Amino acid sequence: MNAAIPPARARVNRRMIHIEWGDCDPAGIVYFPRYFEIFDACTAAAFEAVGYPTPVLLRTFGIVGIPAVDIRGRFASPCTFGEDVVIETRIGDWGRSSFKVQHRLLKGALTAVEGFEVRVWTVRDPNNPAGLRGEPIPREVIERFVEAVPSASVVP
Amino acid sequence: MNAAIPPARARVNRRMIHIEWGDCDPAGIVYFPRYFEIFDACTAAAFEAVGYPTPVLLRTFGIVGIPAVDIRGRFASPCTFGEDVVIETRIGDWGRSSFKVQHRLLKGALTAVEGFEVRVWTVRDPNNPAGLRGEPIPREVIERFVEAVPSASVVP
Amino acid sequence: MNAAIPPARARVNRRMIHIEWGDCDPAGIVYFPRYFEIFDACTAAAFEAVGYPTPVLLRTFGIVGIPAVDIRGRFASPCTFGEDVVIETRIGDWGRSSFKVQHRLLKGALTAVEGFEVRVWTVRDPNNPAGLRGEPIPREVIERFVEAVPSASVVP
Amino acid sequence: MNAAIPPARARVNRRMIHIEWGDCDPAGIVYFPRYFEIFDACTAAAFEAVGYPTPVLLRTFGIVGIPAVDIRGRFASPCTFGEDVVIETRIGDWGRSSFKVQHRLLKGALTAVEGFEVRVWTVRDPNNPAGLRGEPIPREVIERFVEAVPSASVVP
Repeated sequence: MNAAIPPARARVNRRMIHIEWGDCDPAGIVYFPRYFEIFDACTAAAFEAVGYPTPVLLRTFGIVGIPAVDIRGRFASPCTFGEDVVIETRIGDWGRSSFKVQHRLLKGALTAVEGFEVRVWTVRDPNNPAGLRGEPIPREVIERFVEAVPSASVVP
Repeated sequence: MNAAIPPARARVNRRMIHIEWGDCDPAGIVYFPRYFEIFDACTAAAFEAVGYPTPVLLRTFGIVGIPAVDIRGRFASPCTFGEDVVIETRIGDWGRSSFKVQHRLLKGALTAVEGFEVRVWTVRDPNNPAGLRGEPIPREVIERFVEAVPSASVVP
Repeated sequence: MNAAIPPARARVNRRMIHIEWGDCDPAGIVYFPRYFEIFDACTAAAFEAVGYPTPVLLRTFGIVGIPAVDIRGRFASPCTFGEDVVIETRIGDWGRSSFKVQHRLLKGALTAVEGFEVRVWTVRDPNNPAGLRGEPIPREVIERFVEAVPSASVVP
Repeated sequence: MNAAIPPARARVNRRMIHIEWGDCDPAGIVYFPRYFEIFDACTAAAFEAVGYPTPVLLRTFGIVGIPAVDIRGRFASPCTFGEDVVIETRIGDWGRSSFKVQHRLLKGALTAVEGFEVRVWTVRDPNNPAGLRGEPIPREVIERFVEAVPSASVVP
């Protein structure tokens, strides 16, 4: 799950986040579940950057979402309220109905936190309205991430 | 990080959780960062079960907390509001200043979610009040988890 | 909005809550938005206590929920992690499509926090699927709260 | 608590917020406690705008924070994920140790949500390290909000 997404084929989306008082715990550092909320918003932002804000994504393809089935976070250095951090997000490793997301949260040049997600292209199960199931990811979605990468934005 | 904690030496703490409306997202299922909040509370409950509620733990040993440095969650089956689930928590794999926690969230007999945590016994850095660093875990803490296990509560 | 619900006609539902590390902020006290999450869960518990767990409520009456339109919280005394508190919830003041909820969070005999909610019985607007609108509250729902009150549980 | 802060003496701080998937509940609309988190961040941003980011505020004046003692929210129109909203924040009504904050969340020209906060300038109680108490707000803090208002930013 930690193998880096090959950079040559992944766009990088960058987002700045201001760490809030309410993100932090009594030790004065970010309460770790909040990183996963922040990363989830960064995944949405990466889709928005290729033309698919979440409401458009759901409406266009009739999916209920792209829920995570496997999540990992590594916390090398704590962050605290008042800090501005940058999150770099790469989406890649496209399977039939799943894909991977990799987040790197930077404090200046330091990688403070890394996040890894496996997500599934998910629809309501027609045979069981309460159930959910994966479905093949449309080619046009994948192409937005892997084909239109101008060489300048390729990460070395 | 996923290797199961050898069951013969780990107490199991069980906790029932009611999934709330506010735990769920627009797909109607638990928003995954909430599982990490739930699991974090289960880790605290496991310490409380051996005589160390969080405020006692911090006061007794002068630590600022036991922050996570590595977290993983695997989501096999979604949960929704109104469900009562059971979380089984095992703490073990004691290193010098770190240890592992394993959570299993059960819907009836089904393992719906698994969580894995690596946590560090953490103090303020005396040379840098803004900094945190690991410190050796006191023997008496470890012993509460590994020695007093009555054979009846050993997980087969 | 603060006028107390006349106690003679309101059941009281009680719930114990353990304050978690993750509920607290860098001052070491409960981050106040968390109280509103806790109170929201207590409103759901009060409905469950009269036979309407949230999924049953939504399915039985075809509503999308009972969202709040007006919320107030008064914080007299801070709570911190490790504390067990009791929340007393009263539902009453039934209007055509709205009702009031009152929460009292107790630390021992001390009222630490009070919460007040105005909620609306809400359905999807048939003329605008993205819109929501209030609808008359069924008599049978109101009756569960105001009629079956055994004298012993009436709050003096 | 709802009396508007007299606009002639209050700066307005504006902030744009993107509503995230994780802010919303199974009805598809913002889960209301999240508005209070958003508003809390807007109060911090208003202090930052006059030169007091939270870490600076705490360090400069030796306070533990500015916790809320009274909070109100009125929800006129629901918001959903993918929306960009603007929050206008005014701080005023300075008392000896408390002050008021007023938030207006706008969807275009529509006021969707209003928030009201009473906050207290709070220090650790020297006679009781676990306790907190209010203290007079320094004149220099108040002056940053009420004096330096250029006429152009006065709200009519």
